[in-house]
Formats: sequence, structure tokens, C-alpha cells
Amino acid sequence: MPETTKSKQILLVSRPKGIPTTDNFQLVEQPIPTPAEGEALIRTIYLSVDPYMRGRMSERKSYVPPYNLNEPIFGGAIGEVIESKTTELQPGDLVVATTGWQTHALVTPKQVRKIDQSFEAPITTALGVLGMTGLTAYFGLLDIGQPKPNETVVVSGAAGAVGMVVGQIAKLKGCRVVGIAGSDNKINYLQNDLKFDAAINYKTTPDLQKALQAACPSGIDVYFDNVGGEISDAALSLLNFQARIPVCGQISLYNQEEPDVGPRIQSQLLISSAMMKGFIVGNYAERFPEGMAELSRWVKEGSIKYQENIVEGFENTVQAFLGLFIGENLGKQLVKVAEPTK
Amino acid sequence: MPETTKSKQILLVSRPKGIPTTDNFQLVEQPIPTPAEGEALIRTIYLSVDPYMRGRMSERKSYVPPYNLNEPIFGGAIGEVIESKTTELQPGDLVVATTGWQTHALVTPKQVRKIDQSFEAPITTALGVLGMTGLTAYFGLLDIGQPKPNETVVVSGAAGAVGMVVGQIAKLKGCRVVGIAGSDNKINYLQNDLKFDAAINYKTTPDLQKALQAACPSGIDVYFDNVGGEISDAALSLLNFQARIPVCGQISLYNQEEPDVGPRIQSQLLISSAMMKGFIVGNYAERFPEGMAELSRWVKEGSIKYQENIVEGFENTVQAFLGLFIGENLGKQLVKVAEPTK
Repeated sequence: MPETTKSKQILLVSRPKGIPTTDNFQLVEQPIPTPAEGEALIRTIYLSVDPYMRGRMSERKSYVPPYNLNEPIFGGAIGEVIESKTTELQPGDLVVATTGWQTHALVTPKQVRKIDQSFEAPITTALGVLGMTGLTAYFGLLDIGQPKPNETVVVSGAAGAVGMVVGQIAKLKGCRVVGIAGSDNKINYLQNDLKFDAAINYKTTPDLQKALQAACPSGIDVYFDNVGGEISDAALSLLNFQARIPVCGQISLYNQEEPDVGPRIQSQLLISSAMMKGFIVGNYAERFPEGMAELSRWVKEGSIKYQENIVEGFENTVQAFLGLFIGENLGKQLVKVAEPTK
Repeated sequence: MPETTKSKQILLVSRPKGIPTTDNFQLVEQPIPTPAEGEALIRTIYLSVDPYMRGRMSERKSYVPPYNLNEPIFGGAIGEVIESKTTELQPGDLVVATTGWQTHALVTPKQVRKIDQSFEAPITTALGVLGMTGLTAYFGLLDIGQPKPNETVVVSGAAGAVGMVVGQIAKLKGCRVVGIAGSDNKINYLQNDLKFDAAINYKTTPDLQKALQAACPSGIDVYFDNVGGEISDAALSLLNFQARIPVCGQISLYNQEEPDVGPRIQSQLLISSAMMKGFIVGNYAERFPEGMAELSRWVKEGSIKYQENIVEGFENTVQAFLGLFIGENLGKQLVKVAEPTK
């Protein structure tokens, strides 16, 4: 079994300037580690590639520390326990872990969450709509955005993994929902499949502010910001009194080396008595059970749909990651590393 | 009595570009009006000149509508009832009204608030620390800023009418308080009279960010923003996790004609899970009694001090207003228009 006798890892070997390239990463092999007392060995089944990872590849301060050079990229993954020296984990158990871009890893029970297979969602949802992605949408929209029936909710990055959950929850809450995304394919999906009230392709719209104004005849009550930059400038010019703006991501900036300069927004917030708040999902850790229960119910009853884009093969991880910044993918981007045993 | 047989008004006759000049205003005289049934005639005793009035002199959308050309500037004033056709107001009553820059005005009882003279603060406080100014500081700091003991609160425009109340309330709440202001005289006052922990003269400090960093060794938990622009940029670079930023004013911009461009702040809010919210005091109208009770208690017991800068004579109103933007005055700027009868 030559392919499985080694563990593979993808290391960050240099910090990207602008858009990352394959040169910033290196695939290395090493012996599969052996669990010590209290540990288990897992092999990776799926791993997640996410826009926020770009931020951690730079040295500058962010909400999570930068990745270290010559270490594997950390992030969400689904693993199967294949050897265990703890009674809390049994071979065959499927778990969510933050082991990231490697084929094998040692974990302790506290570092993982067993996947609840009591209802029959694909296990991949544990990295998406029923994982950190869905929880990010849930808490950002509901806790910060506080949408009320008949309000207008605008979401940027609307066809991304977080954005499409945001829009669907907003629809469930009785809001008018307008999505901003970067291809006609995405726009069609948002309008036809997810029943957004309107969707705007920012790449082909000659005047985004005008297009938004037309799509939001009653102004904007909640702007869920995944992208930042000029798209956000346009949305912020249309805020209603007491509008709320959860700031979830700034993907338009992650590959930008020059400082992010634009109209200062304080005047907009002052004019509208509006509120803007940055967040990461970890801020809501104590309320994850509530969020998971709600999201599971909505997925089960079919009122929240999800999209996954799965690339096969660990060696294609970097390509899958780089694809996030080209803007062609719908929904959650995953890499399938291996088949589960059962 | 030639001087009192006419009513005087100061009209906005052209919209300022940049810093207003005396040419933008015109003093006119007209007959003193007569109250109809249900109205009272008041003569102005004091009137208030405030930075926010500059915003209303421009045509652009703001949180309050622009002033109309060829009408008097509206704003806070203290008046004495001199003739009444309503039982709710008696000659001699002192009231707070929004009659603005005129020597006489007709009001209905609903448009005014009688000044509570049950404790012996000067009546001028009804336009300052025991009026909209104090309430602005109270609700902006406590409702949005939510300061906790031992946190660091930074306030810009710290020697202004709102800023000095903000800093003193923050001290009462057990915070480390750092003020930013524009003259050594103000800095001395903040540190020596109001007992701020530190104060920085932004005009003479070579590197404001470094000076703030030195004054805030534990970072910034609350930044109360009265000024905007580069002063705010410096403060926003030092936010702690879950920091709060009440946006009360943007005085640095009010006379600026070009767009306000600078580093976009979304990344700072995201990195720190920080919250920024614009507000005007009117948002809290239902809670004014609570705020007034607290402020009155603090002023009575001497734990909040206030400063008033009083110019004599209605004809000096425009000069008093223009002085707000030169940055030399401590505390609340008022114009004394007439002596009260008693």
C-alpha cells in the first residue's frame, strides 16, 4: 500500500504577495504518526478551503494569528478515526477537526466534534451548512443583523458558502433579500433556486449603486458584508435609519497589498444611526447548540438548501483554494481526500 | 424702547462652501409676532451654537434635514414667556425650545420643556450638561459604549461640550480615560480639572497613533468619536477585542467640501470583533427622564463639572458659531441674548 504508508501535508513555505501562487506551498510526506495515550489517529476524508485562510497567510495582525511558515495550513476537516488510545474515540468514528491540509493527524477527544449522523445529511454538511459556515451565517445575521419581517437584507458574496445561508435565513424571517455576486450563473441560482427577491452581478452592472437602489426601493436595513471594498461602499450609501451591518469577511481585500482606502463610513453610520459590527463565529461558541438545532431543522425540512463544490484528491487542495478568488464556485468549496470506510 | 419693539432673526442666505463666513448669514428685523389661541410668545434669553448646525447648512442628506435658505437657523434656546394664550405657560416661565437664532418666537406648550429650577443649577445648564449635550454624552457612552470598570475609554473632541461629559461619566464608571483635543489649554483642563488619566494635543503631537498607544497601554475598549478623519483612524488602529465606538459627530468634516477618504475601517472592526454605531440623542427620547435624573445627581454632587463659554449679544451669534471650528473654546458655547426678568 505505497500510497497510504506516508502522511502528506501541504506547508506554507512563503507568504503570498497579492494573489497566492502554487510556489507559496509545498507538499511533503512523512511517516504516519502513532497516537500516544489519550490520543487518536485520524485520516482526513474531506478538508475545507476558505477565504479567511488567505488572511492568515499574511504576517499582519488579524482576528486569528498568522500561519507559521513551514507548517501545514490549519482549517476545518472531516476525519475518520483509524487508531485510538482513548475510550472516547473509536475506530470508524467520523469527526470534525481543525487539522487542515494534511492526510493524517493526531487529535485528543477535546479537539474534535463527533458528527451527528442521527439525521441523514451528507457528512460534508458538517463543514458547511451544519458547521462553522452555517453558524457564521446564523449568528452574524440573527444576532448582529436582527432582521425583521418586511425589512430589506442585502448580502454580498451571496453565492458563497456563508452568503447563501444568510440569504435563505433572511427569507425565512420574512425579509426582502437582495444578493450581490460575480457571475450570471450565480445570479440565476440565487434568484431561481434560492428565491432571492433580486440578485445583482457586480461585474457586469455599470452602476452598482443605482442597481442596488432599484433592487431596494425601501432602502437597506441589513447589509451582510462578506467582501468589503467598493461593493460595500455602494451598499452603505443606501442604509435606512437604524440599519445593521454584520462584517463577516472582506474577500475583496485579502489579496490586496496596498492599503484599503475609500470613503470613510462614519458619516453614513451617523446619518442613519446605523450599526456595524465585525465578528467571528467563535464569539458565539456558547450558543452553537442553539444554532445547530435551528440549522438542522431548516435543512431537514428543506427550507435551507446548500451547494457544495467538491474537488477530488489531496494534491488538488491548493488549486481548490486558489479557485475561491476567481469567483466561479457556488457554495462551499471542499476537497475529498479519501473514502470513508463505511 | 426702540431696541425691543422689533424681533431680530439671523437667516441662512447662502449655503457655505467649506468654512462658513459672515456672508452666509443676514440679520433681519421684523415686528414682534402676537400669539394666537394656544400659543405663547417667548423672548430668547440664551441660544446655543453647535457644530451639528454646520451639517444642516449644506444641502446634502444628513440625519436631520438641511436648513432652508432665508429662514432663521433653528437650534436649542432658552426663552422666557412674555405673553401667553395658553394656561400651560405663564409669563415669566423659563423654557427650553428649539427656536434657534431669533430674539422672539411663538411656541405651543408641546414644543417647549419648562426648566426645572428645583435645584440651583444655572439655567444655562438646560442647554448643556442638563440638556441635549449632557444627554448625548450619557446615552452615547452608556448605551453604545457600555464602558466597564478598568476599561480604557478614548474620547475625541474631549474639551467640547459633549466630550467633557463623556470623559467624566467614564471616570465615574471606573475607566481609564484618555482625551484628544486641540490646544495645550484644553489638555491642561482635561488632566488637571477633570482628572482625565491622559490627554493628547493632536495638533502638536508628531505621531498621534504612537501617542495614543503610549496613553492606552492596554488598548482601547471604547472610542467615543466626535471628530472623524485622521484622529479616528489613529484610534481605530488600537481597538481591543469587542471594542465599541459610538459615532456622535464628525466635526473635522463639516467644513470639508471634498469627499472624506481614508483607510476603510471594516478590517479593523473585523479583526477586533468591534462595533461602531452612529446615533443622535433623539433616538433616546423615551429615556430622557432617566438620563436627566442621573446627570442632575452627578452635577449636584459635584462629580460632573461643566464649562460654558458665553458670548454677549444676539448680533455676535455668527461669530460665536464660527469660533466652534477654530477650536479654542472649552465646553458649551452659548450666546446671551437678554437678561431674564427675575
